[in-house]
Amino acid sequence: MEEVDKSLWVRRKEEFRSRMMEDVEIGYLDRDIIDVLLKFFEREESFTISSCSGRIAVVDSPFPWVREPSSVIFKKHAPVSVEEVSSIIRQPAVWRLWGVVTGPIIHVSTLTLKEALRILEIGREAGMKHSGILSFGRKGIVVELKTGVMVTTLLKVGDEVIPSQESLVKVVETLNEALMEGKERLNRLRKVLGLEPLNYRELWSN
Amino acid sequence: MEEVDKSLWVRRKEEFRSRMMEDVEIGYLDRDIIDVLLKFFEREESFTISSCSGRIAVVDSPFPWVREPSSVIFKKHAPVSVEEVSSIIRQPAVWRLWGVVTGPIIHVSTLTLKEALRILEIGREAGMKHSGILSFGRKGIVVELKTGVMVTTLLKVGDEVIPSQESLVKVVETLNEALMEGKERLNRLRKVLGLEPLNYRELWSN
Repeated sequence: MEEVDKSLWVRRKEEFRSRMMEDVEIGYLDRDIIDVLLKFFEREESFTISSCSGRIAVVDSPFPWVREPSSVIFKKHAPVSVEEVSSIIRQPAVWRLWGVVTGPIIHVSTLTLKEALRILEIGREAGMKHSGILSFGRKGIVVELKTGVMVTTLLKVGDEVIPSQESLVKVVETLNEALMEGKERLNRLRKVLGLEPLNYRELWSN
Repeated sequence: MEEVDKSLWVRRKEEFRSRMMEDVEIGYLDRDIIDVLLKFFEREESFTISSCSGRIAVVDSPFPWVREPSSVIFKKHAPVSVEEVSSIIRQPAVWRLWGVVTGPIIHVSTLTLKEALRILEIGREAGMKHSGILSFGRKGIVVELKTGVMVTTLLKVGDEVIPSQESLVKVVETLNEALMEGKERLNRLRKVLGLEPLNYRELWSN
């Protein structure tokens, strides 16, 4: 097992911290998750390297897990309307259009194995059952915090729209409910971290 | 970090080995993956605790990741026909019917961290990008080998069938293609482990 290079790790933490603060200032960072990321930065032996608060996307791709060839044609961190979805699926698809909901995901770099295990424990306490240690390296130990929240529903195959016209409302309702499930998991994580829950609907309406 | 109890670990390896061999004999163990599991058992410091070669299921559940309340109403480790799927979705759904394809997944218990990292590396070489170390305990270190192969497509919400009648063929084709993608990943793992690729279609026709 490769040892973590402490001075490299500390330098990277500061780099990631200033990059994040810049993103906050220009309003680039997803407001649904900022407080959680800051909480990890407060820990002596942790910082976050990437994150997503959960989102709904429409992806044109042979399969939802494929990166190449594939394009994200729509992405939103808040609920979607039937109108939004129906206008998207009227567009031609090269491969297949997938309605993809993902829950929150956070990648944490830790200085020590002890801290990595503690982060993993925090994830489990918050019900993020799909968490694990991804890698060990000179730059740090990478822990992924992830829920099982994931929907990948077929919206179009070539020219063929999949949901019948009458059923599209149910599909959109399901996507939105799944999104909210993910956002609630993030509030469970807040609780474990000693943070106040976020009222997302209030935040989104501003 | 809790140390692995070596004698406990060795005892469990033997228990899991005999349980697996019994399953092989009564024809209970999934033939698509037996050789891979045996290969892990050959390693001094590893054994497998659970696995799936990849499958297509139809689940009645509020969301695909929910265990309770939820029931698997159909499950198959080989491609499905349009007739199979259309007869299932004629059945009433309590919650929602999801067509779920999962790729191969293998849980390995290792005696040492060094071996856990080696297993993780094997997973990455085989393109199982969603692999990670799940836990450290007296009973061993648990490594999950997993691909990104996953489809969870809506088939029914309450009484409302989602795919239009004309589009069901495309849905079933997509499920089957996704299943085969998963099975091919398992063949990539075989290659890394020095095993011969499996001809699934030949196996299934017997």
